[in-house]
Amino acid sequence: MSISADPSAGQAVKAADRAHVFHSWSAQGLIDPLAVAGAEGSYFWDYDGRKYLDFSSQLVNTNIGHQHPAVVAAIQQQAAKLCTFAPAFALDVRSEAARLIAELTPGDLDKVFFTNGGAEANENAVRMARLHTGRQKVLSTYRSYHGATANAIALTGDPRRWPNETGTSGVVHFWGPYPYRTNFHADSEAQECERALAHLEQVIAFEGPQTVAAVILETVVGTAGILVPPAGYLAGVREICDRYGIVFILDEVMAGFGRTGEWFAADHWGVVPDLLTFAKGVNSGYVPLGGVAISERIAATFAERPYPGGLTYSGHPLACASAVATINAMREERIVENAREIGERVLGPGLRELAERHPSVGEVRGMGVFWALELVRDRATREPLVPYNAAGAANQPMAELAAACKQRGLWPFVNMNRLHVVPPCNVSEAEAKEGLAILDEALTAADAHTA
Amino acid sequence: MSISADPSAGQAVKAADRAHVFHSWSAQGLIDPLAVAGAEGSYFWDYDGRKYLDFSSQLVNTNIGHQHPAVVAAIQQQAAKLCTFAPAFALDVRSEAARLIAELTPGDLDKVFFTNGGAEANENAVRMARLHTGRQKVLSTYRSYHGATANAIALTGDPRRWPNETGTSGVVHFWGPYPYRTNFHADSEAQECERALAHLEQVIAFEGPQTVAAVILETVVGTAGILVPPAGYLAGVREICDRYGIVFILDEVMAGFGRTGEWFAADHWGVVPDLLTFAKGVNSGYVPLGGVAISERIAATFAERPYPGGLTYSGHPLACASAVATINAMREERIVENAREIGERVLGPGLRELAERHPSVGEVRGMGVFWALELVRDRATREPLVPYNAAGAANQPMAELAAACKQRGLWPFVNMNRLHVVPPCNVSEAEAKEGLAILDEALTAADAHTA
Repeated sequence: MSISADPSAGQAVKAADRAHVFHSWSAQGLIDPLAVAGAEGSYFWDYDGRKYLDFSSQLVNTNIGHQHPAVVAAIQQQAAKLCTFAPAFALDVRSEAARLIAELTPGDLDKVFFTNGGAEANENAVRMARLHTGRQKVLSTYRSYHGATANAIALTGDPRRWPNETGTSGVVHFWGPYPYRTNFHADSEAQECERALAHLEQVIAFEGPQTVAAVILETVVGTAGILVPPAGYLAGVREICDRYGIVFILDEVMAGFGRTGEWFAADHWGVVPDLLTFAKGVNSGYVPLGGVAISERIAATFAERPYPGGLTYSGHPLACASAVATINAMREERIVENAREIGERVLGPGLRELAERHPSVGEVRGMGVFWALELVRDRATREPLVPYNAAGAANQPMAELAAACKQRGLWPFVNMNRLHVVPPCNVSEAEAKEGLAILDEALTAADAHTA
Repeated sequence: MSISADPSAGQAVKAADRAHVFHSWSAQGLIDPLAVAGAEGSYFWDYDGRKYLDFSSQLVNTNIGHQHPAVVAAIQQQAAKLCTFAPAFALDVRSEAARLIAELTPGDLDKVFFTNGGAEANENAVRMARLHTGRQKVLSTYRSYHGATANAIALTGDPRRWPNETGTSGVVHFWGPYPYRTNFHADSEAQECERALAHLEQVIAFEGPQTVAAVILETVVGTAGILVPPAGYLAGVREICDRYGIVFILDEVMAGFGRTGEWFAADHWGVVPDLLTFAKGVNSGYVPLGGVAISERIAATFAERPYPGGLTYSGHPLACASAVATINAMREERIVENAREIGERVLGPGLRELAERHPSVGEVRGMGVFWALELVRDRATREPLVPYNAAGAANQPMAELAAACKQRGLWPFVNMNRLHVVPPCNVSEAEAKEGLAILDEALTAADAHTA
């Protein structure tokens, strides 16, 4: 890392940003984006020469850290060979990326439909499920994030619109398991699991099983709280889906490709969905890429009947090349194993130790390099440190915590009343410990708001 | 170009493709994808050493041709520096891409929201229009393509779903101008224009102007037929939108960045929309990229109110670097001017000459490097060569035409009863003439089906 300060360059970058860049999920006049000059491994730095330990992995996507040399080289080589090519053709690097992903995904998920990211992956999984079943409704949980698209095919006038028209969104939300704040008045994980499954089955019964195309779950819920499913839950959902002929979709956009200490989070429980969606970790986001891994049975539905979905950059060569290099590097460097070990030996014990010292920590949960600290005003009542969807003054305690992390050189991932601890999968033990030490100091900002 | 045959390598690529790649818009068991080994400029080649003149620009996206050295170098340099970074930060290359695009877009469209492609660009434009107006309905034409996403935000359980819920798709389709097959019984372009505007205004009146958030048009309709709007139409739509406080969205995903012989097709008519969507030509698809250029008035709506949309790869550094290099190369090499000149001097006259010799050509229309041959069984009745949305045997005449092009070394873009002539914007005069000569031969396959 060669970090040098150049504040005036940073000011120019920021001025052009404020003049011309419209930012995601933001009030454009109220943001003050940090101008970033460079990044390497688990760190990035700004134009003032300040270095940050990236405990967010950006948006939980840089599973192999910043600027992994093997992936950078693969992108450069593929750029020299063939940057872009339409999806209708067969390409070496597209075939190889699909083959490697099919090899890693569980069960018979051996066909891969490539997209540009996770939202489009979920779009296409739902389309496949609806056409495969001939049913319309899709069930997903209230605590979930599956992407931000919703309209383009409805705008389209040509016949590609016909098989995609829904009239209504057709989505029904239900409650997943969440022992710490149970919706089912359960007093154990086992009871939470049992009651959550009974709830899902009752929602299906009252929606009409013959109307339900799919149940979609994040295998481990990501942005909405890093909710690890209790033992038996995913197998139970699998069984319910089988009973009613419902397609089971697992969204592994955030949880997949090493984040939980397995290639896919589903591997922890030996559950095989009918469709598995991915993005982020598949190539650490070095080039936009996502996709759907498809079971033989669902692929067969589209053997002689055209699949009515697509996109210009499906199976993009640069993106596929970066996925091939990423997967190979993760295997060679045992990066998935590292994520598991760091979780078991360093982050899990370290975060639980923090919880003992900091009254603001209500619960520590997670696995691999996928952890949440759920912050509370009062451990007894479990009152969240900030209300659901708080903004402005109401969100002040979390804003102070984030600021305290940044001041100490750690870039955090915060969402509502949670701080997620999500470093790269190849974070070193020393870096993980450096992060824990900073969190130990920063959490005093949250503690100040406890009862 | 160093083209050498390696058929067994091609067979391996194709075998892995058939085993693991699920293709866009296709019956997976009925396709036979060509394995492609390389590409340069206006050509690509397969593993048998066969070379094709790319008159499709892939999916009408490689406006600067294949493997432009300046863009390849920019991708390689950015890869070495910073491949990926989250949207919340300010980055030199993101700022510069936004600045360059804002400089090129018409009027006060000076803020840029980046996406991964055209579908997401239209998704976000519609979201902005709905929130800006507080209205729900969006009007688009029957002859249009705006992308293939529709569901992800409805699946999402977190509060980002709330401002995005629509209940119904809220899309109403109307008829745009199309003099060759008028929906308005018009006998001149001027009359078609006048009646199409009256039709739009009547649809708005009966839908309720106060319920209509946006009208979205492809400035020149692309896949649905390369329909160049009659003089006065776009200005008329602009005026109607202004009268009723409706947001005017121009989709320039296919028509933008040089395709029509101007940077944006809207420039031909001096019309400024409120939102302009782009993708494809912005960087020729070398890295997945799209976006929305936003007027000051609509950007101001989100100055203090959060914009409820986003994506992990918004403003992706590699994508932005390739856009900067593409725009600079297009300027330096006068690629937009070339597209205009090739259209005026070579393709336009050449295609009209083909029409004289080939009875299957019902109409020639287009501009720049954006042309359609509309094929008919009978010029007098204008009966299309194949029916709307024909497949299998009913589509045989068009399949034969496509095969005749490929046999002669030209890769065509065909859609329904049309052959689109859409080479790169930097196609040379010699290449354009080579393509015309091949089309001259291939069109006899279509002529054989005329009355």
